[in-house]
Amino acid sequence: MDLTHFDEEGRARMVDVSDKAETARMAIARGKITVKPETFERIRSGLIAKGDVLAVAQVAGIMAAKQTSQIIPMCHPLMITGAKLSFNLVEPDEVNIEAIVKVNGKTGIEMEALTAVSVAALTIYDMCKAMDKTMTIGDIYLVEKSGGKSGHYRSS
Amino acid sequence: MDLTHFDEEGRARMVDVSDKAETARMAIARGKITVKPETFERIRSGLIAKGDVLAVAQVAGIMAAKQTSQIIPMCHPLMITGAKLSFNLVEPDEVNIEAIVKVNGKTGIEMEALTAVSVAALTIYDMCKAMDKTMTIGDIYLVEKSGGKSGHYRSS
Amino acid sequence: MDLTHFDEEGRARMVDVSDKAETARMAIARGKITVKPETFERIRSGLIAKGDVLAVAQVAGIMAAKQTSQIIPMCHPLMITGAKLSFNLVEPDEVNIEAIVKVNGKTGIEMEALTAVSVAALTIYDMCKAMDKTMTIGDIYLVEKSGGKSGHYRSS
Amino acid sequence: MDLTHFDEEGRARMVDVSDKAETARMAIARGKITVKPETFERIRSGLIAKGDVLAVAQVAGIMAAKQTSQIIPMCHPLMITGAKLSFNLVEPDEVNIEAIVKVNGKTGIEMEALTAVSVAALTIYDMCKAMDKTMTIGDIYLVEKSGGKSGHYRSS
Amino acid sequence: MDLTHFDEEGRARMVDVSDKAETARMAIARGKITVKPETFERIRSGLIAKGDVLAVAQVAGIMAAKQTSQIIPMCHPLMITGAKLSFNLVEPDEVNIEAIVKVNGKTGIEMEALTAVSVAALTIYDMCKAMDKTMTIGDIYLVEKSGGKSGHYRSS
Amino acid sequence: MDLTHFDEEGRARMVDVSDKAETARMAIARGKITVKPETFERIRSGLIAKGDVLAVAQVAGIMAAKQTSQIIPMCHPLMITGAKLSFNLVEPDEVNIEAIVKVNGKTGIEMEALTAVSVAALTIYDMCKAMDKTMTIGDIYLVEKSGGKSGHYRSS
Repeated sequence: MDLTHFDEEGRARMVDVSDKAETARMAIARGKITVKPETFERIRSGLIAKGDVLAVAQVAGIMAAKQTSQIIPMCHPLMITGAKLSFNLVEPDEVNIEAIVKVNGKTGIEMEALTAVSVAALTIYDMCKAMDKTMTIGDIYLVEKSGGKSGHYRSS
Repeated sequence: MDLTHFDEEGRARMVDVSDKAETARMAIARGKITVKPETFERIRSGLIAKGDVLAVAQVAGIMAAKQTSQIIPMCHPLMITGAKLSFNLVEPDEVNIEAIVKVNGKTGIEMEALTAVSVAALTIYDMCKAMDKTMTIGDIYLVEKSGGKSGHYRSS
Repeated sequence: MDLTHFDEEGRARMVDVSDKAETARMAIARGKITVKPETFERIRSGLIAKGDVLAVAQVAGIMAAKQTSQIIPMCHPLMITGAKLSFNLVEPDEVNIEAIVKVNGKTGIEMEALTAVSVAALTIYDMCKAMDKTMTIGDIYLVEKSGGKSGHYRSS
Repeated sequence: MDLTHFDEEGRARMVDVSDKAETARMAIARGKITVKPETFERIRSGLIAKGDVLAVAQVAGIMAAKQTSQIIPMCHPLMITGAKLSFNLVEPDEVNIEAIVKVNGKTGIEMEALTAVSVAALTIYDMCKAMDKTMTIGDIYLVEKSGGKSGHYRSS
Repeated sequence: MDLTHFDEEGRARMVDVSDKAETARMAIARGKITVKPETFERIRSGLIAKGDVLAVAQVAGIMAAKQTSQIIPMCHPLMITGAKLSFNLVEPDEVNIEAIVKVNGKTGIEMEALTAVSVAALTIYDMCKAMDKTMTIGDIYLVEKSGGKSGHYRSS
Repeated sequence: MDLTHFDEEGRARMVDVSDKAETARMAIARGKITVKPETFERIRSGLIAKGDVLAVAQVAGIMAAKQTSQIIPMCHPLMITGAKLSFNLVEPDEVNIEAIVKVNGKTGIEMEALTAVSVAALTIYDMCKAMDKTMTIGDIYLVEKSGGKSGHYRSS
């Protein structure tokens, strides 16, 4: 299959989806940030006390989902109808991030979900970087998507 | 050490750097996207023909570096004085991304470098997703930073 | 009634409106800025001469209406189909602002109207602040909204 | 005194501050949102449980402070060096908002503080509007500013 | 015919298109930048080697098309369904730019096409300005538009 | 001279200006939009009555100057210290636009001036397009610049 983002001359373009039908679409993406155990404890305690790194990361992720088409050059603008981020703390050093995004649109919404996860991870990094410079963001992938002609996809 | 992004009541704030000196600062971040071998070949051939996924990713990464403080909630605005992205294709399936960002400022520029790498990876994902849904973005970390009171850091 | 912006774990999310029908929606918001009488006169004369504070405030308010979903974290993106701001000067010291915004969408447009009024007031403040530091912005509220399942609302 | 935002022909411009010295500047603004007592209780309980309206409003306010020069037409871009929002719940129905913003710059930072307060109030409105349409945002004013040639100002 | 962007009081507004039908719309705009012959050669060689001014201009133009309603005050937000920029090098000194933009919407998309062309030209200027300060951007006009009640237009 | 926006591998980058001195810089750009004589009359009468196309264009141009580094990919962020747009109506069909922009910075500000002129012209187009589809934007060029190592430039 060809890369649909290039035209016949090989130049980048925004793929023409004018004739595609609007369907209900959903995408789930995941990623994680690995931190020092002491950073992990600090983030976890924030869930209990008021200093809540994850609350800020969540807002950042949702706002980023809405800005995806302005961050990713060939990405179509879409009017997101729902976005939700959740975090799962896995001892001793991992914060797992999951984003679910929905839209009724002519094209898939996986970039919005992946961008939300990435920006949430970057925000966690930013808020913890004074105490930990060794954090690593990784394993960002598409878990599931539905809607559109290509149908349902689920990562194996 | 405490998380400096929280005030005494535990609420998030933008850390006060008013009294810090402006110094020449630099940060290098790296990350990668792992793709199917056939996607890898297609990206590589784009380097030769005109259909150049990496050229678009590079523009996206540099533009994202400039928007970092609008994407990451507690990140200070900084007037970047230089930004450069480079790609390294590692057979059979990895695209490595490196960003070098510079500023004369009161606070570090690592978030700009990490954001540039993340957005470049997301852009590669976006441009290849029609042919490959299994791509994974990962290993995003700070390689090196210099400038400011905390001095030089290099990941081991 | 619960706060719909929070999920079952109490975390913020963008409410899922995927299954709501698109209806014609309208919202009217009002607010005012109270200024010194001499500032009031200067603004009023601007309506006659070319130095027109309100013309700038009007453009600012309309542009802000279009950016609402990027300013308010959990606000859905909406494609506004019409926006109009008007001003009413009430002697000796009040500038009243009214915004009417329309959309065909799945969710209400009151935030766009309220944001337009707020930004118009802030713009008046900005343009007059060299001569008046005592201005107060206030009484920003929803006057009326229509469309959607909850039906017509009019403030009493 | 003339409105400095207009040139000799009466047209709007961004005031030329090229020759002003950079000084340490600070501004404090306040505002409030008046809600139904039941909404007030719900916001207050959010401070204890995880559903925290004010945490989202705080992030929104800080991000808005950074975007002020893109929202207010004639406002100069400034590189904020610190921003902090705090909330004070006054029984039975008021949420008071205070923003402190700092910069080293050629021009005052009061618009950033006022914009932060306004957007925090709008965000509270957005997150509570499903249960309360009668909320009113008001009493937004400059409490204090320092720095620059005009010196210290404190509202009486 | 009256200028529809003004209301009965002569103030600017965003025209109300709520009752217009959504139709498939397309617009084509063109423009050019005239450069020194040596700059022309350098841009042309970029098409062959990797230093590709036009690749950057193309990304900039497409991203600008998506931001049009945030740049042009009274312009309606539209969800572009396709955008394509192409360049035509005319010896000895002209780079011609053409943008085709598509949408299913209630209002025309000519501003998006014209903005894409303008920003592509500005980007070429930016990337060549170190070697050429005499470049001129010009002849930006609407070539063709279709869709909507006013029907097909083609510049003569 | 080489195109400084490309690195040794021919890839685009943001030129490193870290070691350049901050100097007072100024740039003047001009451009024009040619319209039908009847459109010209309508714009001119707007200067007298309240329906003022040029007032909206002026706000748009100044706001665009502040966003230049987010619109033009390789353009450095700069904190503009002054911006002014003026219009000159030349019978029977030309609106001339001039932008003067100032900054204390490490790199020139011509892109900000050129972008302000371009966006002002696009805004005039947008506001008149219901009555005139034949307008042409052109002759956008750098009139003068000062500051920096390359010294004073004035177009001949």
